[in-house]
Order: sequence, then structure tokens, then C-alpha cells
Amino acid sequence: MSVEALRSGDSLVSRTVDAVRAYMRTEGLKVGDPLPGEGHFAETIGVSRAVIREAFGKLAALRLIDVANGRRARVGALDGSVIATSLDHAMSTSQISIADVWEVRRTLEMRTAALAAQNRTDGEANTIVALADQMATVGAAGGDVTAQDIAFHAAIAEASRNALFVQIVSSFAPLMEVAVPAAWATRDAQSDRDMIMGHHRALADAIRRRDAAAAAASMAAHFNANIGIQLGASGG
Amino acid sequence: MSVEALRSGDSLVSRTVDAVRAYMRTEGLKVGDPLPGEGHFAETIGVSRAVIREAFGKLAALRLIDVANGRRARVGALDGSVIATSLDHAMSTSQISIADVWEVRRTLEMRTAALAAQNRTDGEANTIVALADQMATVGAAGGDVTAQDIAFHAAIAEASRNALFVQIVSSFAPLMEVAVPAAWATRDAQSDRDMIMGHHRALADAIRRRDAAAAAASMAAHFNANIGIQLGASGG
Repeated sequence: MSVEALRSGDSLVSRTVDAVRAYMRTEGLKVGDPLPGEGHFAETIGVSRAVIREAFGKLAALRLIDVANGRRARVGALDGSVIATSLDHAMSTSQISIADVWEVRRTLEMRTAALAAQNRTDGEANTIVALADQMATVGAAGGDVTAQDIAFHAAIAEASRNALFVQIVSSFAPLMEVAVPAAWATRDAQSDRDMIMGHHRALADAIRRRDAAAAAASMAAHFNANIGIQLGASGG
Repeated sequence: MSVEALRSGDSLVSRTVDAVRAYMRTEGLKVGDPLPGEGHFAETIGVSRAVIREAFGKLAALRLIDVANGRRARVGALDGSVIATSLDHAMSTSQISIADVWEVRRTLEMRTAALAAQNRTDGEANTIVALADQMATVGAAGGDVTAQDIAFHAAIAEASRNALFVQIVSSFAPLMEVAVPAAWATRDAQSDRDMIMGHHRALADAIRRRDAAAAAASMAAHFNANIGIQLGASGG
């Protein structure tokens, strides 16, 4: 295929991607709503089914549509995995450092902590306190606390009542799956582990008491203690 | 094609996407480095060229590789446009509100302002002050200040010395291209416009003086004044 043909093919696919996005917007579609079939878009946009399939592939890669298991395409849910993939790629190709990521996380999560203290329901407060307790129990028994740690941060983001914070915080989970065990392994001393558990419990308690300033301060203390350990563990 | 065939095809493509990502990581490739051709991956992964092409399409949609104009694939640069596309989709399908986005922007940009005050070079301080001055000049003449506004926030993110902040802030630019003119149009009174210009100039001056607390406070004042106007303009 010539470069010209490829260019022309690329622009047809791009035009089709834009047309499908415009369709979802102008029709007021919501998450999970089905899209018309390939034939509909092929006719209305005036391109081949092969172009539609390629465009659907790009939209699915970006999670704008969901075509799981070959079923009819549906409007996709905002998904932290797209940002997570960008973060992973940027870190593994040295475009951003782990220090960059931890600084962004600290900035965002100090704010989700404060908003959670303001906006949490009683049920959410109970969940957040319970997750801090579970993490302490598992940690004291020498277990892997990664799952509890990720769930704790996710529950706080959820209680912030801001769906964008929820997705950005969830995009950090794959990095935490690597970083938390690495950092934990460096904590030989029980006193180090107790300090981390103490931060989580103080944070959970501040959210329960609806004390936004204390919640942000506890999250900051938690990150400031962790950042040194993480950078040490990763050699960064 | 049967559902089973589609499933099997999907998993081959996913496996290929993962293999190409692993190749970039283990070979230590950097932005702009060329990847081997389709034939290499077809052989080493043991899949057809059609599968490789589909996988490359997905990687290109996520900007993990760059195949512009049909040239050989190269390692892609971290690109705010992927996050911008997610944001646009989530807003247009009512998954997140403009208030959610503005809250996240305020949180991130209060921090980039403080970091810029700490880390800016003299050249960056001059650029930031000049952009605030230009925006005031264009605005006083009744012109469209959107380009200056976006450049001003981007220059502050750049001076923060954190490449992840730079990309996240850049992902908000398409929303600003819509929101800034809308908000500006509601400001009939010269006093409103003067207030916004005053925030930008105070912020630029705080960064110039290396006063991180004043820079964050000016950014907060700027967002707090703007958020009400934006939400009014968008009806949200």
C-alpha cells in the first residue's frame, strides 16, 4: 500500500471515529446504551464496513465504546485503565519518573481526603474505617496489604463525590500493585509498619469526624512518609 | 464471524498489544525510537500480520506508538490528548459534570502554581509574566483571550518540572477552548474582566517572586471566581 493510500485510509478512519463520537453526543447516549450496527454507520458516513470496523477498534481501545465478546457495541464507561496504560507507558519509556507520579497522587488524594470528610455518607465512613482496621490486622500478621491499601484509597475517592477523581485515583492502582509490596518489603521494623497503619487510621478517623483539614493533613503525612520509602525501593 | 472466533481474535490482539508493550519496556526504548517491523513481531509472537496490524492500530489509538503517515512505528510520547478524549466522552455522556472537571483542575493547578514558584527558571518567569500581560492587552481590546489563557496555564505546568502535571493540564485545553469564550461572553462588565486579568497578573507575579503560597492562593482565587462563571455559562 502506498503512503498516500495509507494517509487517505487513516483520515477516513479518523473521520469515522469523530462521526461516531458526534453521534453519541448528539443522540444524548448514556453508558451502556447500544450503538447502531456497522451497516448504519457505513451508510450514513459513506465509508466501507472495513473502515467502520477499524474505527470501532480505535474507539474500543480508548474505551469510548465497549464491544466485549463480539456483542453489539455499547457506550463505554469512563475507565481509569486508559490513563493507567498511559502512565505505565510513560514510566517504562522514562518520560515521567515515579517521583512525578507520587507528587500528582499526593496532590489529588489530599483533596479527595478533604472532600470525603465533607461528603461521605455514614456507610462510607464505616467502610473507610473498616478498611484501615483490616489493613492493620493483615499487616500485623505479616500479610500482603496491597489489596486493602488500594481499596482504602478508592473508597476515599468514591466518598469525595467526584467521578473524575474516582477514575484518576483508580488509574494509579496498577502502579500501587507493584510499589506497595516493594515498599512494604523494605519495612523490617515493626515501628515503620505501625507508623503507616497509624496514618491510615488517623485519616479514616478524620473522615469519620468530618474534619477536612485533618483528613488532608493525614493524607499528606502518609504520602510524605511513603514517598521516601517508595523512591528508595524503586531506586528512583 | 462467530462470537467464539471474535473472542479468540480479541485475545490474540490483546496478547500482541501486551507483547509489543513488553518489548518497548525490556528493550529500554525511548520516545521516537523505531520499533521492528510487522514481520518481526509476527514471527516472534507467532501471530499473523493482520493481528499485528490490528494491535498496532490499538497501540496507536492509545498513542503508545506513533505510526503517522504510514512510516515505521515509533515509540509514542505521553500525550494529553488521550486523557482529553476520555474527558470529552465522559462529559458528553453525562458520566462526569463540568463541576467535577473544574474541581480537579483547581486541585492540580494550585499545586502546579506552587511548584512553578519554587522551580521556574528566570526565562520561564519572564514568559509567564509576558503571557499575563498579553492576555490583559488582548482582553482590553475586546479580543479572544483563549489562546493566551491556555498558554498561560501550560507555561505554569511546564515550570512545575513535573511531566505528568504538564500532560494532565494539557488534557484540559480542549475543554478550555469551549469554556473560556463562553465564560468571557458573560462578562459584560469591564470590572469582571479586570478581576480575571488581576488574578493572572498576581499569579504571574507570585511565581516571579518565588512565593509558592501566594501563587497557590492566586490560582485558587482565580478558579473560585471562574467556577461560578463557568457553571453559569454551561448551565451546569
